[in-house]
Amino acid sequence: MKQNALYAQSGGVTAVINASACGVIETARKHKNKIGKVFAGRNGIIGVLTENMIDTSRESIRDIASLRYTPGGAFGSARHKLKGLDENRAEYERLIEVFKAHNIGYFFYNGGGDSMDTANKVSLLSHRLGFPITCIGIPKTVDNDLPVTDNCPGFGSVAKYIAISTQEAALDVASMAKTSTKVFILEVMGRHAGWIAASAGLAGGKHDAPHIILFPEIAFNERAFLSRVQACVKRYEYCVIVVSEGVRHASGRFLAEANTLDAFGHAQLGGVAPTLADLVRKGLGYKYHYAIADYLQRSARHIASKVDTNQAYAVGKAAVEFAVKGENAIMPTIVRHSDKPYRWSIGKVALSRVANREKMLPRRFISRDGFRITTACKRYLSPLVRGEDYPPYANGIPAYRTLKNVAVEQRLHDEFVIG
Amino acid sequence: MKQNALYAQSGGVTAVINASACGVIETARKHKNKIGKVFAGRNGIIGVLTENMIDTSRESIRDIASLRYTPGGAFGSARHKLKGLDENRAEYERLIEVFKAHNIGYFFYNGGGDSMDTANKVSLLSHRLGFPITCIGIPKTVDNDLPVTDNCPGFGSVAKYIAISTQEAALDVASMAKTSTKVFILEVMGRHAGWIAASAGLAGGKHDAPHIILFPEIAFNERAFLSRVQACVKRYEYCVIVVSEGVRHASGRFLAEANTLDAFGHAQLGGVAPTLADLVRKGLGYKYHYAIADYLQRSARHIASKVDTNQAYAVGKAAVEFAVKGENAIMPTIVRHSDKPYRWSIGKVALSRVANREKMLPRRFISRDGFRITTACKRYLSPLVRGEDYPPYANGIPAYRTLKNVAVEQRLHDEFVIG
Repeated sequence: MKQNALYAQSGGVTAVINASACGVIETARKHKNKIGKVFAGRNGIIGVLTENMIDTSRESIRDIASLRYTPGGAFGSARHKLKGLDENRAEYERLIEVFKAHNIGYFFYNGGGDSMDTANKVSLLSHRLGFPITCIGIPKTVDNDLPVTDNCPGFGSVAKYIAISTQEAALDVASMAKTSTKVFILEVMGRHAGWIAASAGLAGGKHDAPHIILFPEIAFNERAFLSRVQACVKRYEYCVIVVSEGVRHASGRFLAEANTLDAFGHAQLGGVAPTLADLVRKGLGYKYHYAIADYLQRSARHIASKVDTNQAYAVGKAAVEFAVKGENAIMPTIVRHSDKPYRWSIGKVALSRVANREKMLPRRFISRDGFRITTACKRYLSPLVRGEDYPPYANGIPAYRTLKNVAVEQRLHDEFVIG
Repeated sequence: MKQNALYAQSGGVTAVINASACGVIETARKHKNKIGKVFAGRNGIIGVLTENMIDTSRESIRDIASLRYTPGGAFGSARHKLKGLDENRAEYERLIEVFKAHNIGYFFYNGGGDSMDTANKVSLLSHRLGFPITCIGIPKTVDNDLPVTDNCPGFGSVAKYIAISTQEAALDVASMAKTSTKVFILEVMGRHAGWIAASAGLAGGKHDAPHIILFPEIAFNERAFLSRVQACVKRYEYCVIVVSEGVRHASGRFLAEANTLDAFGHAQLGGVAPTLADLVRKGLGYKYHYAIADYLQRSARHIASKVDTNQAYAVGKAAVEFAVKGENAIMPTIVRHSDKPYRWSIGKVALSRVANREKMLPRRFISRDGFRITTACKRYLSPLVRGEDYPPYANGIPAYRTLKNVAVEQRLHDEFVIG
């Protein structure tokens, strides 16, 4: 009756994904009657396919507890999307073969929309193949773009980091504007959805910075942008701009596209700040500076939101509790009951309903002129950045811990080549 | 006998320069027998020259206390270097004219090397002109490049920010390297001296990241760099690089130089990360990401070092105490008595000895291969990032306060044009 569990992290990691891992492992350890060991995929699903798993039962109570405050992916994550069942049946069958070999009856997949789709397909196929696996998705994405759930663990901490960084940089620029930098640009993540850029609107310091937010949802209009920058500099002597990496021209082309191609000739985003700076330089001649937050924003556990770490833990815990109650092919969700005071609880949704659907920033969250967020947006965002959840420090640096990550002995002796 | 004081901030601001302002104002308020009001230059020395000063006596005790945890420059700062006495006598004479008009007998100038030079010249000239001003410099620079003082207020907090950001981003990259980004580059400030880049060496996480630090003090060698990146990726599957904006070729040309010219055709630094990324792409073909911390690093009061905020306050306080004791033309210094336990006290040095001298990272602080810091360097840096000094929060965002900044009534009715 008692079966082992498999936990895997998927896609870009966050400051709080390990808090979900902590919720899974600590809760599974409380259900010894139903769940044996919790294995983790080394580098996510790649480690499952290649039978490279980690035995989390070898970690101490203290080390598992430390996951709650350690950023990154403690077992490694992967960008590997399993395709449809027909196109990629071999990988699904391999997963189930590994599950069988290690008596794994529970699969907890911690990721975004693609991962929810994979978990759903594993559940379906495992039933068809006569080795039913309980598959529970655990939401994780800094992009906050999963549907149904009110918000996604990982997002609140990025939002807090971006709001604070914008607030602090704006104070810096304000003090120097008379004789130095007049335009400051902060480039943030968000290739499709503008949630992260929107969170800068919580900075709310003096002179109402940030003065301009550029969202992927709003087509870039160079003339309107430059005219807004100029008006702002005339009024305040400076202008603070937060721009999403995913901002596009009306044609659909990314603003940053021309600048960065990777080794294989693919457009690699991340250069929208210099592109904008160049427009400001050519069009207005103001002295500028720009920052690109990149991975700093999604790994900044030192300034994580307490609400976020609590919710990340809660969805991990709920995933296990749902599983032992016999639920299957679902994802725990965060349900908002009220904004003020902020009240939330854990709900659930069928994986089939969240797979491969993106939740964009609604138009009513963006001001009519397209450059700011609305009061409704602030009301939504504000609770998600509440509370500080500082990690422990040693000698001035966070005392993040590294797990032993002891390998599970392999039982299948064939080498699986990932397609 | 009782005279007013003038406090001005100069050059790039820091996360803790206002803590020095707090030290000055709170201490001056305790010496009412000798010091009348404390005025502040609006936008630094520019505000003095144009007789735009702020009356800090109009601020509440609570608001002055809040300076201790508010980043940026509370009264505005300026990049305005006064030239030599002969070249620019008009500006010096104007300063003294303003001081006379407002019965200012104490001048506290909070800045770097240039500002110490200015304070020294004001002191000399004021004596010659028969209106002697007590001039005390207060050290401030994120670059940590002032001589004599063991370290500079402002630096410890940037060092802490860079060490933590490197540590956190390295955990992120480590978890994704199997299938995603292999090379991560963080660009940091430091045009001449590598102190800030060096501080990344405190990150000290798993796999010994950061694996490569590039200092302005070491000429860039492309072949050695790429070979080190490759060796690192082979060993750990990823490579974390921290690069100072001031890194140069052996010829003396900045690595970033070609990339960014400002509106007036001047080289504007800040593009060394993409330059390096391009070398990695062309030379090795690895997937990369880069972050540019820019102003975020020097305004990040949310993660300021407690040692740094204490020292920033202490030099402000000491400046006033020295002044009322009759000292003149000096700068308080930070004197280190021991590393472990870290013990320090306040000393003093003649302004003439600190003006216009830069303290570079000593060669013995850089490993022989030029890519890392030594144990001696860690021993020096480590105490400076110790302790957390979190600001108060409201709704998840730091509750930084803005002062009223009430203007001092003008007494001179001629308009002064800055040269």
